[in-house]
Amino acid sequence: MIDYGKLSLKLHRENRGKVGIANKVNIMTMDDLAIAYTPGVAQPCIEIAKRKESVYEYTLKYNSVAVITDGSAVLGLGDIGSYAAIPVMEGKSVLFKTFAGIDAFPICLNTENAEEIIKVVKSIEPVFGGINLEDICAPKCFEIEKRLDEELDIPVFHDDQHGTAIVVLAALINSSKLSGKELKDLKVVINGAGAAGIAIAKLLLKAGVKDIVLCDRKGAIFYGRDDLKFAKKEISILTNKKLQKGKLEDVIKDKDVFIGVSSANCLSEEMIRSMNEKPIIFAMANPMPEILPEEAKRAGAFIVGTGRSDFPNQINNVLAFPGIFRGALDARASKITDNMKIRAAFSIANLVRRDELNPDMIIPSVFNKDVVSAVAESVKAVAVEDGVSKVIV
Amino acid sequence: MIDYGKLSLKLHRENRGKVGIANKVNIMTMDDLAIAYTPGVAQPCIEIAKRKESVYEYTLKYNSVAVITDGSAVLGLGDIGSYAAIPVMEGKSVLFKTFAGIDAFPICLNTENAEEIIKVVKSIEPVFGGINLEDICAPKCFEIEKRLDEELDIPVFHDDQHGTAIVVLAALINSSKLSGKELKDLKVVINGAGAAGIAIAKLLLKAGVKDIVLCDRKGAIFYGRDDLKFAKKEISILTNKKLQKGKLEDVIKDKDVFIGVSSANCLSEEMIRSMNEKPIIFAMANPMPEILPEEAKRAGAFIVGTGRSDFPNQINNVLAFPGIFRGALDARASKITDNMKIRAAFSIANLVRRDELNPDMIIPSVFNKDVVSAVAESVKAVAVEDGVSKVIV
Repeated sequence: MIDYGKLSLKLHRENRGKVGIANKVNIMTMDDLAIAYTPGVAQPCIEIAKRKESVYEYTLKYNSVAVITDGSAVLGLGDIGSYAAIPVMEGKSVLFKTFAGIDAFPICLNTENAEEIIKVVKSIEPVFGGINLEDICAPKCFEIEKRLDEELDIPVFHDDQHGTAIVVLAALINSSKLSGKELKDLKVVINGAGAAGIAIAKLLLKAGVKDIVLCDRKGAIFYGRDDLKFAKKEISILTNKKLQKGKLEDVIKDKDVFIGVSSANCLSEEMIRSMNEKPIIFAMANPMPEILPEEAKRAGAFIVGTGRSDFPNQINNVLAFPGIFRGALDARASKITDNMKIRAAFSIANLVRRDELNPDMIIPSVFNKDVVSAVAESVKAVAVEDGVSKVIV
Repeated sequence: MIDYGKLSLKLHRENRGKVGIANKVNIMTMDDLAIAYTPGVAQPCIEIAKRKESVYEYTLKYNSVAVITDGSAVLGLGDIGSYAAIPVMEGKSVLFKTFAGIDAFPICLNTENAEEIIKVVKSIEPVFGGINLEDICAPKCFEIEKRLDEELDIPVFHDDQHGTAIVVLAALINSSKLSGKELKDLKVVINGAGAAGIAIAKLLLKAGVKDIVLCDRKGAIFYGRDDLKFAKKEISILTNKKLQKGKLEDVIKDKDVFIGVSSANCLSEEMIRSMNEKPIIFAMANPMPEILPEEAKRAGAFIVGTGRSDFPNQINNVLAFPGIFRGALDARASKITDNMKIRAAFSIANLVRRDELNPDMIIPSVFNKDVVSAVAESVKAVAVEDGVSKVIV
C-alpha cells in the first residue's frame, strides 16, 4: 500500500507549495517595460474605465477563479483553520489548471464569520471570473453561496455541494440504465445530511428522482422532526413524502439506491440485503467508505461506487468542476443554474459508451480527456438557453 | 516616437492579461492525484495545523505577495476604480516575477473604505508572505499601511511611498558624491506632498538630510499653516525648521536639490537659476516631468533625473521593490524597517562604480542583474540586525 501522506509531505516540502505565477509577457527591454507597465499600461486602464466589460478582454479576469475557504470543514479533518487548509486549496488550483487550463488562485480566509466571508469575497471579486467555494462547513456554506450568487454577477459554485451532486447524478444515470430502472422510479436513501447530502438530494429531485429519504446521525429526516433547522428543515419539506422515520437500517429497506456521504463502515451487508433487487451503492466516505466494495457485492450489490481510485467507479468531483467552470467562463455565465448541473451530469454519463458500460464501469476516468470539453460545451449551451450568458453567440 | 499606449492595448488584448497560474507539480496519474490532492494532501494540512510556521515549508506562502489596490490613485489617472486598475496590478505582478522570482497576485478591491480595506487584507493574509500596497490615494494610504504593519506579522510595503523614497535616496547619495556635498548639508525642496513626497521627506530625514521643505499646491508646508491635516500636519513638524513660507519659486532659492513628485512643467529655468551651485534636479512627474532635462541643463542643473527611460538617470521603483520583497521574504521579515530602506538605497547607489559615476549615470539601469540580489542581501542582513527576521541564520 502506497503511503500517500508521506509522499505528499515530501512533494510539498520539495516544491514549497504547488502553484506559482506565470508571466504571459516577457520584460527584456525598456520598451517591453513601457508597453506592459508604465506609461503604456494606462491605455487598457482607460479603456476599462470607459467600458467595464472590456476587463474581460484586457485582463486575467476572463480565465481566473478564486478558490475560497475559511478552513472550517477541510477534507475529513474538520475545522483546521485557514493556514492548514492552504495545501488543499493549492491542490484545487493545480487541478483547475491541469484539467481545464483555468488560472485559479487559493484564497484562505482568516475569518469564519459568514457575513465577513461574504464581504471579503465581494471585495476581491474584480480580478476573478468565478468563485469556487471549498471546504466551508454547513450550514453557513448555504447562506454564503446563496448570498454571493445573488449579489455577484460572476458564477459562484460550492464544489463540495454541487460538484459532488453532479457526479453522483452522472453515476446514477448510468447505473439506472444498467439496472433497467428509470430515474423517476428510483427509491433513494442518502446517508449524511451535510452540504453534500443536501445538494445531492436537491439535484436528484430536479433531475426527476421522486422518492428520496435523507438520514443524519439521528436517523431519517422527515417534515416535522422537531430538531431540524435551516437547510435540513427545508429539505424535510422536499423529501421523504411518506414521512418515514427510524434509523438508516429501517429506512434503507426496499430502497433501490444508497448514497453515502457520511462515515466509514456505517453500512452493513444486512442493510444491503434488505434493499430492492439490483441495489446501487455509492459509498463515498473518505478515505474509508461506508462499506467496502467486496462486502457490498457479497451482500448482493449490483453496482458499487466509492470516492477512491483503487476501486472501480470512482465518484470524483474532478469529473465536474473543471468543465463546469470552463464552460461558465467561456459563456461568461453570471451563474451556474440547475439546468447546467443536470446537463453536465448527462454529459459525463454519456462519455461511457454503451458497449463499455457495465457495473464496474459506470463513470469515465478522471483522466478521460473528453470529460472537460463535453461538460464545458453542455454548460455553455445551457448558459445561453437559460439566458445567463453574456457572450453573444 | 513609439506609441506605447497603442502597443500596450494590443499586448493586453492578445494575451488577455499578463499573468496566470503555473503548476509546480504534474498530475498525470491517479498516484499523482493522490499525492498532490486527496488523500495524501491531508498530511501537510495536519502538519500545518500542528505547527503554524510550517506553512512556509509546505505552501506557496514563502514566496507570495499580494499586490493590493482599491484603484483610488492609479498612475496619473486618479480614481479609476478597481476594475480599470487591474492592468497596472498585473504589470506589477509581472515585474515581481521577472526581477525577483516572486509569485505576486493582483488583488483589486471593490471598496474604497479604509477600514474595509484593512479588514479584507487581514482576511486574505494566510496565503501571502507579503503585502504590496499600490495606487491607494493619500491620506488613507498612510492609515492603511500603518494599521496593517501593526496588525500583521508579514511585511507590508506601500510602494508608491517607500519604493519611490528608496530610489530617490539612492540617486541623491550618488548625486551628492558627484557634487562634493554631503547628505547632512543638503538643502532640499520637495514639490508635491502626497504619499510619495511625504515618504521621501521622511526617509531623507532618517538618512541624515536635515534641511527639507515640502511644497504642495498652496506653497511651502510649515508648522502652523492652518489648513494642514493628517500626514501633512505631521510632516510640518519634522521639516522646514526655518518656517519658510511662499510659493515654490520663493522657497527653491538657495536650495541644493529639487525633488518633484508633482506635475508637468511646474519648474522653470528661472527657478533653477535661483538655486545653489551645482543644482540637483529630480523631476519625476509622469509622463511629462516638471521640467525637461535639456531645459534644466540649460539653466545650470548639474544633475537631472526623471522617471522616464528615454532620458538619463531614470528614477524607477523597479530598482527597489523586487529586491526589498526578495530580501524580506528570504529573511521572513515581519516588517520593512527604515534601516532596511536606507541600506537598500545605499546598495542601489553602490552598484554604480566610481569609474562610471557621472552626472548622466547616477543610478543603475533597471536591467542591471545585480540590483535585486544586492538589495535583497542588504534587506536580509538588516532584518537580522533589527531583530525582525524569523529565519535562524
